[in-house]
Order: sequence, then structure tokens, then C-alpha cells
Amino acid sequence: MDNDTTLSALKNAVRSFCEDRDWDQFHNAKDLSIGLVTESAELIDHFRFKSSSEIEDMFNDGNKKLKITEELSDVLFFVLRFAQMYHIDLTTELIRKIQINNEKYPIDKCKGSNKKYTEV
Amino acid sequence: MDNDTTLSALKNAVRSFCEDRDWDQFHNAKDLSIGLVTESAELIDHFRFKSSSEIEDMFNDGNKKLKITEELSDVLFFVLRFAQMYHIDLTTELIRKIQINNEKYPIDKCKGSNKKYTEV
Amino acid sequence: MDNDTTLSALKNAVRSFCEDRDWDQFHNAKDLSIGLVTESAELIDHFRFKSSSEIEDMFNDGNKKLKITEELSDVLFFVLRFAQMYHIDLTTELIRKIQINNEKYPIDKCKGSNKKYTEV
Amino acid sequence: MDNDTTLSALKNAVRSFCEDRDWDQFHNAKDLSIGLVTESAELIDHFRFKSSSEIEDMFNDGNKKLKITEELSDVLFFVLRFAQMYHIDLTTELIRKIQINNEKYPIDKCKGSNKKYTEV
Repeated sequence: MDNDTTLSALKNAVRSFCEDRDWDQFHNAKDLSIGLVTESAELIDHFRFKSSSEIEDMFNDGNKKLKITEELSDVLFFVLRFAQMYHIDLTTELIRKIQINNEKYPIDKCKGSNKKYTEV
Repeated sequence: MDNDTTLSALKNAVRSFCEDRDWDQFHNAKDLSIGLVTESAELIDHFRFKSSSEIEDMFNDGNKKLKITEELSDVLFFVLRFAQMYHIDLTTELIRKIQINNEKYPIDKCKGSNKKYTEV
Repeated sequence: MDNDTTLSALKNAVRSFCEDRDWDQFHNAKDLSIGLVTESAELIDHFRFKSSSEIEDMFNDGNKKLKITEELSDVLFFVLRFAQMYHIDLTTELIRKIQINNEKYPIDKCKGSNKKYTEV
Repeated sequence: MDNDTTLSALKNAVRSFCEDRDWDQFHNAKDLSIGLVTESAELIDHFRFKSSSEIEDMFNDGNKKLKITEELSDVLFFVLRFAQMYHIDLTTELIRKIQINNEKYPIDKCKGSNKKYTEV
């Protein structure tokens, strides 16, 4: 499906869901960002106090993987909704951001390194 | 661009960026989730202590809007990277999650309401 | 109680709770920070999509206020635990940080302003 | 200092700092929670993509430890400010929450275990 689904198609699915419920009135930038923060936190909550091997096991357990995936979908939902409400073309912006990061993280200096660009 | 770009195309752009730097070794679920949390927090930081009208003004200021958009792109980057690393089809999962939410938030009970499903 | 309880007394209460369960082994800096992030997110989740007046009403509803307060306590729990595990004197550090902020946010420039120090 | 400083003393230091700047008007529950979320995220950002041993090294580097500690102080600042603005006695509430957790996490079932209470 990711092979033949456009960003716009997903944005439209999210918009329909929200407009059917008349939620534009609540979906301002501050509250949508709260959505992103809380859903990201629900995702990371699955991994709190867990070791690497315990986490890899979760992804081999269909039920656990599903729960984790649902949190990731919730994050994506709010990314798409934010972009739709504020007229942001995600493709243009992601490509632009990757180009910025290409300069912040030059391959020859960053290959195999976990340093932040401020530490490079 | 969102009109004719697939999710897979964006996933590939993110994968190339990371593989060029040999970053698979650092990109486990816990640390990618930290990425999502920190980038979401950088987004919301723009709105801290700001009123609704101040926030709407930010989106009319090209420079400010660009900064905000870059944070949103960073969140999307980590959503795509998480999905790519853990073989998650975002389209399938988002549609499935919207169907779940359709039942959690029935239109007739939730239209125009900002209540959480636990309060409905 | 806050009038006659020291930071050390609360740190000790938190340490006892964790040591009784043999949890030092899980309480490293990364996972304790996940604790801080997730509990802060559970706090803010109460306010998602809510207006100022709806939020003020919550604090007049004893039951709701209790739920909110419990999330704040969870955040404090992890602050105290982090400090205890990494030998941080919170009083010394908070006072030092307030002094730094005194310079970042000089009263004459910041009085009545919601600008970040980077914008002042 | 933590040995002989009360919670009220720290709350007062935070209140003075904020009242000197006339910031009560901005410090509602939603925005103070954004403060907690963003400062917690700045803390965890230090540990993103870092291994356990790299993180332990940070605490042996005085400069790095100071930077980490400053983020923890920022989190504590907002906990104290939230409590002060909404008349919450942190000592009472923390002790109450620990009692709740004593029942959620009984010692005989949770000793040496990293399971969440929902998994016990």
C-alpha cells in the first residue's frame, strides 16, 4: 500500500475523519502539537525500562507489535492533520529538511558516528 | 508534490540518508522514539506561553512558519524511519487506526465535541 | 507539609520505594528520562483540545484535580529518583539555574513579556 | 542543601522569580505542562542514540553532567511552579501517590521485575 498511496490520499483520509466530527475548531497548532507529544510518549512508554533484547522480542510478538504500530499511526495522524490544517506540503518540506541535514551531517564526518551535529 | 509522491518514496529518501551514514546500528525502537519525542517537543516549544492570535500570526510570518515546518518535518522523518526499520506499512496501519477511531468516536456522539473517548 | 519537609526526605521516600523492589538495575538516565517524558505527557493529555475555561473548571472539580495532581506527582517522583541515583543536590542546582535565568531573562526587559530569551 | 531545604522554600524561590517578571498571566496549566514536556525532552535529548556506557561517561565529565543537571532543574522548576500556581502540596501528594503505587506494584510480585503494573 505504501507503494501506491500518496501523501495527499492519507491527508484526505485524516481530514474526512476530522471534518465529519466538526473538529477544525479544536485543531489549532498548539493542541495538535500536544497530540504529537502525547502519542510519541505513548509509543516510547512501551520501551521504558526494557532492554534491547526485550524490545526486539516485542516486534516478534504479533500482538505487541500491533500495539506499538498503533501508537506510531497516531503520531502520523497528527503529522498529517497538522500539515493539512496549515497548508504544508510534507514532501517538499521533508526533502528540504533532508538537504539541510545533508550539510549538518556530512557523510565523511558522520559515517558510523552517533554524535549530534553540534558535537561534530 | 504530496499529490504525486508515495509513502514509499519518502521512506526511501529517509533510508538512503541514514544508510549513507551507517546509522542502522543506532536506530533501534527506543532511540527512534526518543527522536519522535524530542522533535515533537521542539515543535510545541514554539507555542509555549503564546496566545491563539500570536500563534496564528506566526503562520503568516514566512520565516517563523518555516521554522515550525522544519520541526514537523523532523517528526515525519522519524515516523518514516521507524516504519522502514520495523517493516510497517503506514498506509495499512493508518487506515486500520482510523477505523478503530471511527468506533471509539462515533460521529453522532462526537460531532462538535472535544471530549476524549473515555469521557464520551 | 511542604512547609516542613525537606528535599532529602522526599528523595529518601522515593529511594526506599525503588530499592524495596530492586529497581536500581533498570533506573539508568535514559530510562528515567523516558519516565519524565511519559509522565509529563500524561499530565498535558488532560488539557488537549480543552479551552482555558474548561481547564480552570477541572481544578474546581475535586476528582479531576486529583487525577491531574497524580500526574504531577509522577513527574516529581522521577525528578527525585534521577537526582538520587546521580547524586544531584536539587536545591543547589535549582538555585544555580535560577541565577542563570536571572541573566537570560533580565527583569527590565522581560517583565510582562512572554518572549523566549532568544527573542528578547 | 537538600538536607535542610524545604519544598516550600524552593516553591518560594520559583514564585519570586516569576512574579518579579509578572508571568502569572502566562502560567496556566496547559502552558506549564508544555514547559514540563519540553524540558523533559531536552533532558532525554542528551541520551538519544547513546549507549549505556557512553551515558555513564557523561556523568563522569563535569561539564556534561552540568548540562544534564540544568535540564533536570528546568523540569523541577516547572513542577514547583505548577504546584504553587494550583495550590498543590507536593509532599502530601507524593506520599499519597507512593501509597497508590505500593498497591499497584506489590513487592512480592514486582521485586527485580521491569514489568508495568498492567503486565503484572
